[in-house]
Amino acid sequence: MVDLRARMAALAEEVEAALDRMLPAIDGPQARLQEAMRYATQGGGKRLRPFLTVASADLFGVPHARSVRVGAAIELIHGYSLVHDDLPAMDDALTRRGRPSCHRQYDEATAILAGDALQSLAFQTLVDPATHPDAGVRCALVAGLATAAGPYGMCGGQMIDLLAQGRALDLAQILELQRLKTGALIGFACEAGAILGGGSEPARAALLGYAADLGLAFQIQDDLLDVTGDAAVTGKDLRRDAAAGKATVVALLGIEGSRGRLAELRNSAFVHLERLGCDTGVLRAVFEFVISRSS
Amino acid sequence: MVDLRARMAALAEEVEAALDRMLPAIDGPQARLQEAMRYATQGGGKRLRPFLTVASADLFGVPHARSVRVGAAIELIHGYSLVHDDLPAMDDALTRRGRPSCHRQYDEATAILAGDALQSLAFQTLVDPATHPDAGVRCALVAGLATAAGPYGMCGGQMIDLLAQGRALDLAQILELQRLKTGALIGFACEAGAILGGGSEPARAALLGYAADLGLAFQIQDDLLDVTGDAAVTGKDLRRDAAAGKATVVALLGIEGSRGRLAELRNSAFVHLERLGCDTGVLRAVFEFVISRSS
Repeated sequence: MVDLRARMAALAEEVEAALDRMLPAIDGPQARLQEAMRYATQGGGKRLRPFLTVASADLFGVPHARSVRVGAAIELIHGYSLVHDDLPAMDDALTRRGRPSCHRQYDEATAILAGDALQSLAFQTLVDPATHPDAGVRCALVAGLATAAGPYGMCGGQMIDLLAQGRALDLAQILELQRLKTGALIGFACEAGAILGGGSEPARAALLGYAADLGLAFQIQDDLLDVTGDAAVTGKDLRRDAAAGKATVVALLGIEGSRGRLAELRNSAFVHLERLGCDTGVLRAVFEFVISRSS
Repeated sequence: MVDLRARMAALAEEVEAALDRMLPAIDGPQARLQEAMRYATQGGGKRLRPFLTVASADLFGVPHARSVRVGAAIELIHGYSLVHDDLPAMDDALTRRGRPSCHRQYDEATAILAGDALQSLAFQTLVDPATHPDAGVRCALVAGLATAAGPYGMCGGQMIDLLAQGRALDLAQILELQRLKTGALIGFACEAGAILGGGSEPARAALLGYAADLGLAFQIQDDLLDVTGDAAVTGKDLRRDAAAGKATVVALLGIEGSRGRLAELRNSAFVHLERLGCDTGVLRAVFEFVISRSS
């Protein structure tokens, strides 16, 4: 049995240190921007995406420092997306990770710029030779992250989510929305381990299959927490989906139906992992964690 | 004598076609996002940055299709920066290129997402093997563009600009602001030609020196147009700098003093170009164009 919480806590510290090295110093007349970039990415979060990258990379014997670095770069993208999603014109969220959201701590303009600069920094980090000695591998990482972040990934999903407010989406539409909004970046976090380690096509496909199930499960659990969770534990505003008339799996299948779907996704994910033919205990434990978390 | 306007018009068409191939099709439930990405980048603009990339690349015999592609990727970054700079929380501009700004044509959330997705697309484009067969060259391009766009480039400059509103900056501070806000991306547009063509260090330094002078001259001319220009010709809101109490070279040196500074920058730029030891007539003509343009 893997002690996942201890492992995640240890990795979160390493990611924190990696981010501290990557993020610009707070200096010069633009110091406010660098402060906001750090505020948005440091000191919080489960660091699930970096953990997935490291766990996947470990299957291929990738040096730890490399996978931590790539995981932290993914976290820069995740952090930028949270800052922009929280803006008044988007989800208008007041809190994030138990603190004021970035635009409330600073202001809207600074938050927009901090998100923009975090995205640039993520790609700058990936192409640095410190990421991997082979430029072809670095290019594959940039291509994968850019695709996951763009119109057929995270940004596309957020667009659909905004358009869906107050509309009745069917289950297929909701699943497509979540595949892009949350799934794409989680998928890349897993795939990045295989890219770093030169994994075979079947191995990459198995990891992506696992990640697709995990990403959807993550989102369903997020939606369940929005309905049943405790704001003091999750560190963010709750009951927002229903208030905004958002289409979610939980709204459509109900709480019990959603829990049943989580169990199905777990079975499917474990079948994908078995195909890898190696010890995937950590990735299995991540799945259990994601569907049982309370924050 | 180079017929610059004809050359720029011809290249603008090629850039338009390249953007059309790069930009995502308008399809799927997120079609609104793809529409806004196209609205923000197609059908307008002088395409100065791509022109600089192609003119610089021509010095090193780079295949035309490659430099056009890289120039168009830079234009994606430029386009995203205009969309975000025009937002109500930033410069609150109503028009751009003679049309409603992106957030007025769509809405703020769509404009934020379109800018974000354009940034991702720029990096996705650069790492594609179609950009250059050597992955090391592609990585150098991503590194250069990410640096030019980030906290020590464009985003940093925009932050300083926002903080400067209503404050009395001295000339050194204004020059630093503009070096980052406008200069960094123009610098990369020139340097990219040398990166694509494997130019020597002295050649890269000469191009960067030229670009620094050009970038500042471009901004001074922009500020002069804001004071003396015709909104029907420039296609954007004017007299906004003075209204916002913005610190500009023109506010500090006056119109005649600014024109004197343009002449000095021209001399300096041409000294840099002479160091290249080849026919730099096109880049000289670009400088003349930039300091004499009326839009």
